[in-house]
Amino acid sequence: MSKQFDFYFDFSSPYGYFAAMRIDALAAKYQRTVRWMPILLGVMFKVSGSMPLTMIPLKGDYSRHDFDRTARFHDIRFNMPSTFPIATQSAARAVIWLQQTAGDAKAITFAKAAYQAYFAEGIDISDSANLLKIATELGINAAELEEGLNSAPIKHQLKMNVEQAIERKVFGSPFIIVDDEPFWGFDRFDQLETFLKNGTI
Amino acid sequence: MSKQFDFYFDFSSPYGYFAAMRIDALAAKYQRTVRWMPILLGVMFKVSGSMPLTMIPLKGDYSRHDFDRTARFHDIRFNMPSTFPIATQSAARAVIWLQQTAGDAKAITFAKAAYQAYFAEGIDISDSANLLKIATELGINAAELEEGLNSAPIKHQLKMNVEQAIERKVFGSPFIIVDDEPFWGFDRFDQLETFLKNGTI
Repeated sequence: MSKQFDFYFDFSSPYGYFAAMRIDALAAKYQRTVRWMPILLGVMFKVSGSMPLTMIPLKGDYSRHDFDRTARFHDIRFNMPSTFPIATQSAARAVIWLQQTAGDAKAITFAKAAYQAYFAEGIDISDSANLLKIATELGINAAELEEGLNSAPIKHQLKMNVEQAIERKVFGSPFIIVDDEPFWGFDRFDQLETFLKNGTI
Repeated sequence: MSKQFDFYFDFSSPYGYFAAMRIDALAAKYQRTVRWMPILLGVMFKVSGSMPLTMIPLKGDYSRHDFDRTARFHDIRFNMPSTFPIATQSAARAVIWLQQTAGDAKAITFAKAAYQAYFAEGIDISDSANLLKIATELGINAAELEEGLNSAPIKHQLKMNVEQAIERKVFGSPFIIVDDEPFWGFDRFDQLETFLKNGTI
């Protein structure tokens, strides 16, 4: 049984943000670590014929209400961004570049900071300039990051990650796979915790 | 503040079934009662451009896995029916007829029995003969029920109920509205309970 499990998320996903604020603590409680895997939901929506929740008739209005209420329920700071959804390729590439050059811990710190910037501070993280500013505040070299973001190997790695996620039948955000057991959605954290605790449900 | 709140469900919805097995006990805990409102998701899916979960690529396989796991997690007897989804007009009309002729308690007892027949026993409740058998076992006059199922006023009432549900922005099953606060999904029962307890989240 691997100590590490996989957390797939898109930076434009509110429930992905909520999961991101809680998943490391949940994993640590059961002596596990988390592999953070940024993905691009837009690609997956083409496979499953889906679209962003907020754009679906009826469901859209409800989901906006549910984002706010779920944030309050779990005591997570949240302000629905005025620009939503956004392109998240640059943020995802930044995480991958950090994983390869600075290690998982730094990449996770950056991912959390980027998520909070977008979903709490209202900063548009589709804008590379804003990503570089967030990185700089974390002591990351902005010039090197910018080069990394635009490099062919990093772009290729993100493409591979998304393709592999689809092969593993990931179709939403957050999506967690622990020992081949899949959990879709922040509202499966209760079942995820039971699985981490008992190895079965 | 009304003592009663509304529970919308489709008889072909697994999560609606799980909710049906738990909602009366949850309501009673907070001195509330439940108005059971059978609806037809097919009509709503046309509005929201959606379709049954199990028919969506990728999401379909996951959802079948999640039905089984959620049933185990909540200790609810469940066997995925071989015929799914099914037409639920007759079951919904039976509930409405019972509400009008025998009262809410009998209608709820029947609704639970029909749900269990379908999702635990594998009985096809789109077949009126099976519905009449379930009714007979509950001491309901099958001939009267059969006439009621096919009567214009009952058909009209179901149509009205579905239209009113759509006006209230109901788009899925289960869908609960308490004091104008909407909750979609069995996995919102944690938030629903907090709302019943505190009147706010």
